[in-house]
Amino acid sequence: MYRSHTCGELRAKHIGTEIVLSGWVQKVRDKGFVVWVDLRDRYGITQLVFDEERTPAVLLTEARKLGREYVIQIRGSVIERTSKNPQLQTGEIEILVNGLKVLNSALLPPFTIEDETDGGTDLRMKYRYLDIRRNPVKENLIFRSKVAMEVRNYLSAHGFIEVETPYLIKSTPEGARDFVVPSRMNPGQFYALPQSPQTFKQLLMVGGLDKYFQIVKCFRDEDLRADRQPEFTQIDCEMAFVEQEDVLNAFEGLTRHLLKAIRNVEVDKFPRMTYDEAMRTYGNDKPDIRFDMRFAELNDIAQHKDFQVFNSAELVAGIAVPGGAAFTRKEIDGIIDWLKRPQIGAKGMVYMRCLEDGSYKSSVDKFYDQEDLKKWAEATGAKAGDLVCILSGAIQETRTQLSALRMEMAERLGLRNPEVFAPLWVVDFPLLEKDEETGTYHAMHHPFTSPKPGQLELLDTDPDAVRANAYDLVLNGNEIGGGSIRIHDKKVQGIMFRHLGFTEEEAKAQFGFLMDAFQYGAPPHGGIAFGLDRLVAILGGQETIRDFIAFPKNNSGRDVMIDAPAPIDEAQLEELSLRLRQE
Amino acid sequence: MYRSHTCGELRAKHIGTEIVLSGWVQKVRDKGFVVWVDLRDRYGITQLVFDEERTPAVLLTEARKLGREYVIQIRGSVIERTSKNPQLQTGEIEILVNGLKVLNSALLPPFTIEDETDGGTDLRMKYRYLDIRRNPVKENLIFRSKVAMEVRNYLSAHGFIEVETPYLIKSTPEGARDFVVPSRMNPGQFYALPQSPQTFKQLLMVGGLDKYFQIVKCFRDEDLRADRQPEFTQIDCEMAFVEQEDVLNAFEGLTRHLLKAIRNVEVDKFPRMTYDEAMRTYGNDKPDIRFDMRFAELNDIAQHKDFQVFNSAELVAGIAVPGGAAFTRKEIDGIIDWLKRPQIGAKGMVYMRCLEDGSYKSSVDKFYDQEDLKKWAEATGAKAGDLVCILSGAIQETRTQLSALRMEMAERLGLRNPEVFAPLWVVDFPLLEKDEETGTYHAMHHPFTSPKPGQLELLDTDPDAVRANAYDLVLNGNEIGGGSIRIHDKKVQGIMFRHLGFTEEEAKAQFGFLMDAFQYGAPPHGGIAFGLDRLVAILGGQETIRDFIAFPKNNSGRDVMIDAPAPIDEAQLEELSLRLRQE
Repeated sequence: MYRSHTCGELRAKHIGTEIVLSGWVQKVRDKGFVVWVDLRDRYGITQLVFDEERTPAVLLTEARKLGREYVIQIRGSVIERTSKNPQLQTGEIEILVNGLKVLNSALLPPFTIEDETDGGTDLRMKYRYLDIRRNPVKENLIFRSKVAMEVRNYLSAHGFIEVETPYLIKSTPEGARDFVVPSRMNPGQFYALPQSPQTFKQLLMVGGLDKYFQIVKCFRDEDLRADRQPEFTQIDCEMAFVEQEDVLNAFEGLTRHLLKAIRNVEVDKFPRMTYDEAMRTYGNDKPDIRFDMRFAELNDIAQHKDFQVFNSAELVAGIAVPGGAAFTRKEIDGIIDWLKRPQIGAKGMVYMRCLEDGSYKSSVDKFYDQEDLKKWAEATGAKAGDLVCILSGAIQETRTQLSALRMEMAERLGLRNPEVFAPLWVVDFPLLEKDEETGTYHAMHHPFTSPKPGQLELLDTDPDAVRANAYDLVLNGNEIGGGSIRIHDKKVQGIMFRHLGFTEEEAKAQFGFLMDAFQYGAPPHGGIAFGLDRLVAILGGQETIRDFIAFPKNNSGRDVMIDAPAPIDEAQLEELSLRLRQE
Repeated sequence: MYRSHTCGELRAKHIGTEIVLSGWVQKVRDKGFVVWVDLRDRYGITQLVFDEERTPAVLLTEARKLGREYVIQIRGSVIERTSKNPQLQTGEIEILVNGLKVLNSALLPPFTIEDETDGGTDLRMKYRYLDIRRNPVKENLIFRSKVAMEVRNYLSAHGFIEVETPYLIKSTPEGARDFVVPSRMNPGQFYALPQSPQTFKQLLMVGGLDKYFQIVKCFRDEDLRADRQPEFTQIDCEMAFVEQEDVLNAFEGLTRHLLKAIRNVEVDKFPRMTYDEAMRTYGNDKPDIRFDMRFAELNDIAQHKDFQVFNSAELVAGIAVPGGAAFTRKEIDGIIDWLKRPQIGAKGMVYMRCLEDGSYKSSVDKFYDQEDLKKWAEATGAKAGDLVCILSGAIQETRTQLSALRMEMAERLGLRNPEVFAPLWVVDFPLLEKDEETGTYHAMHHPFTSPKPGQLELLDTDPDAVRANAYDLVLNGNEIGGGSIRIHDKKVQGIMFRHLGFTEEEAKAQFGFLMDAFQYGAPPHGGIAFGLDRLVAILGGQETIRDFIAFPKNNSGRDVMIDAPAPIDEAQLEELSLRLRQE
């Protein structure tokens, strides 16, 4: 038996008990006549004491030889601590050691195993198993596990069945982003790893399972933006005999439960906003509504003077930055420089300070009088002390830039408080998205999303106008879930595939099984998928998903710890009927 | 809103209520003046009634047009049923329909959607989404989901953290059975799909996570025996600071909990048996101990006469088949023929009836007298009415044949009762297994298994004799779990790799990260992995794992429903820097 207790367990009530502990040496403090050792495991830290008076000399000598991260087992008795440490759960006691065994020695770790470590990201990833010993990383993993359990318990209690769908499936038309897996038993043929279990969950609805969920790994072989992973985890859900309202209510319930159970936060009924409104009011489809600064469109009250910049613009829009009148000229110039960076690409910014005396001071006082500026203040909702920032230009560009500015201002003003949770449903997404380069359309959500009732005909005449029964759940400016009511009619699915540029043969080859299924009594159905990595990070009050993944990959899709991917043997390639292409 | 209730919900107390139901048409019975429709969903069946007196004529006409598996929505009022059906949970009521809407029509299904279907396996797999509508399949999936929830709740309550380990990892030395995944971002390089998360869970122990579990898909690209799948699910577990005893106790607890929670079966402390004893007593390492028929080795009391078959044999061993004396000569000849089939390969069988008068009648009465036979009866534990069956030959062959005979006899006598659960720990497995063809050794469990204390030295002198801290959990003759105490010392791991035929470079290239990890304070650790598919099947009282998998693959590793694997585009191959080999 390696231990009678853990290193987080002993309290004053245990004083006098003989115990056995095992763990890692966190710290050795040698004060000459006495040596203290902090012994650490997952559960906490317990202080061990060796002293000249009470400890055999040989033990004291051994204790002095212990290095950081040595794994040891000790026997001893729990005694009262002279100087108690209220910071530590075990701070009332210490262990007078009477037996010590080194279970494993340790090289000096390449970075300190402390909450604030001196190790950089690359080093920490290479030695991730040491990084995990650090409290913040360990706690994140435990937190993730707790969130997943809450999800499972809630959904199970609400009648959802967790079903495992296959990982070795078939390459799809978005195949360019599929990871493929050569089959040895079927030479020249490949499985694909799922980008999502979409078609399988729909088939489960055709199969009458009624309510399905799964916490499941998904895979996407694409350029990895800063915070994406080639493998990621979804909470995948589907329900039969539902309309959009049913799905929103069901998963609003789940999200509310998680906020309460995990963060003890109570949230009112989630607000809803159409995609169009979100774009108009916040300039993007995942607005952070923890703070205000809604867009005001100012064309009507800003294009009547001789200011050509505004007069030539498709859109003039502004926001009121609370307290922003206090920004210095230099700070404002800094913001304008920031806006002009190529990543944002604004040409400039018009601004106006709302002064305490009710007057206004703007960067375009040459063109506009106080009456004009007052209207701008009213439109943006600016109060005395606020700063109104106005951008102008083509509609989409201006919105995107103003949205970036809004987020930057919120960041500077400390409005993005990770302890505040502001969920939002964005609904009525466009069904299709136009590829501006090729002029072709692809599905904004996915090809199985159902258009709004009565809009099917619009596909031929005005495809951009068609709205879908599709919705996103946004939390603090992050899309944490997205879903739709699906098509359940073979004919409609065929029309969709045609509009997405599939020939009938292609549609049949790729999705024949789904279209077949729709002929045998498919119920109306719909669902949603949450990104677990992101959800956990936000619930944890953080933004980087990598911090909540045990063994993440880097931006090149590499696991630097195990050094994968890696070349394989020629013999293995041959067995798979493959050859490497020489460039 | 598609429904106010499910089809399994309405009872007598609902009589008089106006309701809305949606579901599938199970059956239409047209009696002329009245039409009954059975409406089905996941939760049950509700009877709908349309009659000439109370139903508008147009509705009655529509009802008559309904086909099997049509998806419909109805409105109506709950009324008392004249002839109640106590078989049905909704059998006290029926619905007098006043509104009917066909949500989706259905082609005639290719097999009947009944508990006993007329569809063969291939057809059912091709239309698996229809097969899932059948109660036995649906209930199996729900059962699986319930078992997984019980596992998670139990392990979580006992301090285990579920951690997701990566799916895109590195090919290992058992690489021949790895599925590989070409990386587009790293041309010419491959990930491998995990055969198990073994090294990652060990690194989590090095990382101080203390208690880990995960329900996780694993992958093995090998010839698929009758009841294997290329992707399968494990309950993967690991603990730090444990000896074998701790692991056995922890997972005996889990298994006992599952038997109680899922099957309401109470089991005593699980018996334990060494590998050697299992081989000697049952002829294999996963004995079914629901019934007796232990092997008796008879060399001492059977090799003293002139019977050359026995005298020349390395092993003479027998079992007592309870009640087997009643087998006719013809039946026994049948058994002998069965034994002689190439799959079993026995040369013949000596048998002896234990008669009610205390005398014996054997097939070798020419050679042995009643005194001899009495000793055989005593050794095998045979009583009056039993049949003693004796095989002889080389040790391992004879044991394997006698084990097959024992199972066959149990089957014929109905002793393999799926409602009885007999768990067993088999311990002290050999560390190494010799490849008889090449004379080389490989790890019986895996290369990370620790030899028994003090046996490391034996590796050089008598590798066959080295026993491991390795154990299997056997349930009703099936291995449902297996694990070991791991090596946690870099030097010992190096010695193991050397004995398994790795050069130092190979070991470093493949497992350098693990050996590195062992240098930074690796705790003693060990664990176990359960095959969830098999565990669920056995708990469900069945033997075929495929029946508990939503979308299984066939013996060629194909998903016949979606037709995968399949060829991929030349362009996609090019992006992956691959070319197909022309045979």
